[in-house]
Formats: sequence, structure tokens, C-alpha cells
Amino acid sequence: MTIPTDPETGEFHRAPNRFAERITADGRDGWPVEPGRYRLVVSRACPWASRALVVRRLLGLESVLSVAVADPIQDERSWRFTLDPGGVDPALGIRFLHEAYAKADPDYDGGISVPAIVDVPSGRLVTNDYPQITLDLSTEWTAHHREGAPQLYPEALREEIDEVNRGVYADVNAAVYEAGFASKQPAYEDAYDRLFARLDALSKRLESQRYLVGDTITEADIRLFTTLVRFDAVYHGHFKCNRNKLTELPVLWAYARDLFQTPGFGDTVDFDHIKRHYYQVHEQINPARIVPKGPDLSLWATPHGREALGGRPFGDGTPPGPPPAEESLPPQW
Amino acid sequence: MTIPTDPETGEFHRAPNRFAERITADGRDGWPVEPGRYRLVVSRACPWASRALVVRRLLGLESVLSVAVADPIQDERSWRFTLDPGGVDPALGIRFLHEAYAKADPDYDGGISVPAIVDVPSGRLVTNDYPQITLDLSTEWTAHHREGAPQLYPEALREEIDEVNRGVYADVNAAVYEAGFASKQPAYEDAYDRLFARLDALSKRLESQRYLVGDTITEADIRLFTTLVRFDAVYHGHFKCNRNKLTELPVLWAYARDLFQTPGFGDTVDFDHIKRHYYQVHEQINPARIVPKGPDLSLWATPHGREALGGRPFGDGTPPGPPPAEESLPPQW
Repeated sequence: MTIPTDPETGEFHRAPNRFAERITADGRDGWPVEPGRYRLVVSRACPWASRALVVRRLLGLESVLSVAVADPIQDERSWRFTLDPGGVDPALGIRFLHEAYAKADPDYDGGISVPAIVDVPSGRLVTNDYPQITLDLSTEWTAHHREGAPQLYPEALREEIDEVNRGVYADVNAAVYEAGFASKQPAYEDAYDRLFARLDALSKRLESQRYLVGDTITEADIRLFTTLVRFDAVYHGHFKCNRNKLTELPVLWAYARDLFQTPGFGDTVDFDHIKRHYYQVHEQINPARIVPKGPDLSLWATPHGREALGGRPFGDGTPPGPPPAEESLPPQW
Repeated sequence: MTIPTDPETGEFHRAPNRFAERITADGRDGWPVEPGRYRLVVSRACPWASRALVVRRLLGLESVLSVAVADPIQDERSWRFTLDPGGVDPALGIRFLHEAYAKADPDYDGGISVPAIVDVPSGRLVTNDYPQITLDLSTEWTAHHREGAPQLYPEALREEIDEVNRGVYADVNAAVYEAGFASKQPAYEDAYDRLFARLDALSKRLESQRYLVGDTITEADIRLFTTLVRFDAVYHGHFKCNRNKLTELPVLWAYARDLFQTPGFGDTVDFDHIKRHYYQVHEQINPARIVPKGPDLSLWATPHGREALGGRPFGDGTPPGPPPAEESLPPQW
């Protein structure tokens, strides 16, 4: 995989998402919410896709919106279904995600990213617009939420959630990549400084409140979680985000474990996919493609003590049950 | 710098030292101990050279055996004196250490390593045999040791020191390189496993005794220290020795800080040289040559509590005074 950086500054910036049509309750973009019609394509390695996996689990959309899990190792044709029998996604009948992109735009020659939602009947990509995908699962798919599903994007808190998300996106979700992919020292240092300043501010915010916004789990927590859960396994070493390990930031480490141990979070996390993806795909950063044996992942199961802060994880709702058998992951340590 | 590994196994093995003549009290190899005659060439980045810096300080040999500090960044001609005015070592009058090697053997085409001791009058390399260099400073240069110099290799403990050193060499000093330079996964994992098994055993040994052998500082402590002091700054991330940071191994971390805070240890350590060397020279591991900002080095100054174990750091001797002004290092954090 080639990492594109600005030749002048050495900065890496994520490319915008090209396909931003929305699947809505009223179908105004031509894509009405419909059980069984769409397929969510993810990599369990990818933090942007993992948001959608968590939201789908929390809302109980597993039987309504099926999932395709790509091989964590992309080749020059990008995401591929080499984990499936014959290397073909059984629902879409394709070997590579780019085939669905081509059906949406035969002339498209940009990046192929996950999460992606594909219309199963036509095999056509609908959207790879990850920030909107999770919000739409919360707000447009309500008719199909499980009983007891939480409000992840409640109207009264949207302004505050959006505000927190902006900071988390710029200085956490994106900043770890901007540090790791920087090709010049100042670009790296800028991202590193923003990252740890923001983590310090978030630590402070979470010292006395269990969740980022309100007293229940919201979209904001999910977006922070997917970066934190990868921090020590990947970003600390591979992306040189090494002021501290997450395990050395007591508030955030307890917060992350609290979420990890909440049904719908940790049960979506495949550390093997995460580690192999980053260390084996980014040959520009890790030419020998050796995957580190550390760190000790079993610490994710240790007590976090955050219950003492109160909070109602699912608000007036309930936790989800276990994942469907076919989505269950092997023991992670 | 090209890292040579076995094409079959992906293993890295340190090349033997070619120049092993000894400087002795009786001058039997033609190199008698003589104040002012020899120059110790080091890089402060290099753990093998840093052993000699620590021993020289503890024994008070600074005015007897002068030191040349090479630039931490080698170029294709290896170690160079680009930190000195005009890029020339003022005592030897050479720009590159290889010039002293060439005077010892004009046909030599192997690696250029530090520590190296050069005969100043002839400009000829005498030895690059680092394990012997420190032992000889302790046992052959006794006539020039400072008053109160410690016994770093006392006869009664040599067998035990040698035994500890063998394990530390194979599974710590060399293993971090074997992990970091491995070009295949099994070679890396073998080194990683040996490293952390040995660190666990050393932690156990040091739980109830302040130093590795006997109740005073010996050569064994110096050899372990020079790897430990580089662990979190370099080996943890750059060499993928990431089961734990040193700061997560309470006994070894306290032990390492105890030594760091002992005169003659920490005052030889230049973290800037260490970090720039590893991250900028090994382009095969770190192609963009970005140097991480972390970790927080100020933790090296925190209390270690090891005095409670007793021990007599310098035995019947005394700590060395501060380093000579021209060898003083800038603040390290």
C-alpha cells in the first residue's frame, strides 16, 4: 500500500469519501431502509468500519443488515474476500470490494475504503461515508432496532456529541494516522502534540463522568473507543504515538476497558486482524512486515472500577445479547 | 545502513570483533597501559560503547584515557567525527573511524564498530573487542584508577559475573537486536521470547538484592544497564520488544533508575544521540527516519526505593565526582 503524503510538508490527509448517498427511512436518495437488502462490508482491522460494527451490535441490527468481513491484508486491489470459501463473498458474489465500487461508478479510480454498504440485489455500492453511516443506523433504521436498543444519538444531545466528535476526529481518530504516516518530522510532531493534548483533555473530562456526553453510551464514546482499543496494539509503536501507552493513562484506560467489557464493544474486536493489518500492509513503515508479539492483551479483561461513577450504559434500554454464532470471534488472548 | 540477516531464517547475528589485541599492564601484546597514549572512540548511542564510558567514569580514568565521541548518525563510511570542529577528531586528526582501522589492517573490509581504542601516536586501532575492553579497564589499568574506585570485576566473583553476563548477553544485549533486525517472523519471535523470559528471571533475581552479583555494583550491572536504559526509548517500539515497557516491570525499572541516578551511569547517557541513531540509521526498519517524541524521559529521575535493599554501591570505595566539563551533557529532558 502506498501512503500518499504532501511532498512539501510530509503531511498525510485522509481522502474524502466519494460515495455519500444515504439509506433513509423515506428512501429520498433512492435507498430506502429495508431488512435484508443491504450488506455492510467491513474490515475488523479498520477503526472507521469498526464504529459501524459496534453500532450495529448495540442496536441489534445483525439480522437486518448482514455483514461481510474482508481479509485484514489488502493487496494491490485493496480489500478482498479471501476469508470466504473460494475467496468470494457469498452474498455479493464478488472477490474484491472494488467490484461494488465499479458498479456505482465504472470510471472511479479513487481509494477503496470500508465501511461500505452495498445494495445486494444490484451489487452496487451505496455509501462509504463512514461518519454518516453510523448516524443513519441510529436515526433512520429505528423501525428495525431491537427492543431495548439505546439512543446513541439522542436529539437533545446532538450538538454536544457533534462538538466532542469534531475534536476526537481531528486530534485522535485522524491524528494517529497523521502521526504514523507523516513523512517529515514536523508533520509527525504536530500530530503527536495534538493527539496527546486531546487525550489529556479527554482524561480530564472522563475523570468524573462515566461517558463522554450525558450519562449513557453515545456515538461519541463509540468513535473514541475504536481508536483507543487499537492504541497499545498498534498506534503506540507502529505510528510512534509513544508519549504513553493507553495503559499508562489511568482514566482513559479504565474508560476503554469499561466499554470493551460492555456487550457490543469488545465482542466486535479482533486483535489478530488489527495487528496483522497495520504491521503487514504498511510496508512503507514496516518493511519486514514483522508483527509484534506484544502487548499483553489479557489486561483488557481486568476490572475498571468505572461503575462507581454511576451512569446508565444503555439509558432506559438494555444491553444486547451475544453476537450471532457466525459472527463470534475466537478468544483474543 | 544495511542490516545483514540470514536469507534462510531471517536471523541477525552480530559479527565477531576482528581486532582483539589487548592493552595490558605488562604490555605483552605490544600495547602497554600508558596514561594519555590511547583514545577511546565511542558513540553515546551505542550500548556496547556505553559500557566502556560507564566503566571509565566509575574508575576515574577520564584524564588517563581520552574519549572521542562520534556523530550518532553514521553515513555509508560509518562512524564519523562530524561533531568536532571541521569534522576532524582533534587528537587523532581523522574524519572517520575507518581511517584508524585501515592503519591496523589496510586490507580490512569488515564492519567499523565502537567502542574502539586507538593508539594516538600511530593513529592505529588497537582493539574493538568490547567485552574485553571493559574488563581490561578494571584489571589492567589499576595503577591509574582514582582513589576510591570500585572493584567492578573482583576475583572472588568473576565466575558468577561471567555466568550472569553470558545470559544477559545472549538474551538481553544481543536479543533486542535479534528481535529488531529479524527479517522473518519466527526469528523475531524467538528473540522476543528469550528476551522477556530472561527479563522475568532477572526481575526475580533483583527482587531481594540490589545488584546482580554480590552487594556492590559490578561489570554485570553495567552490561545490563546499557540495554535497559535504551529499552523504552528505542527497543520497545523500534525493535518491537513490546510485551512490556521497562516502566511496566517494577523491579527492573527501579533497578535501572537506581543505577541511572548513581554517578557514572546516568551522566554518560545522551538520549538524543540514542534516539536519533536508531531511528535515523536503520532505514530498513524506519524508512521515513521519523524520531518519536516519546516516551517521557523525566521518569528516570523519580525515586526508586532500592536503598531499602541495602547493598554498598561502591563497596569500600566512593562514588566518582562529576564528569569533566568537556564531557558534561546537556539536560536530557
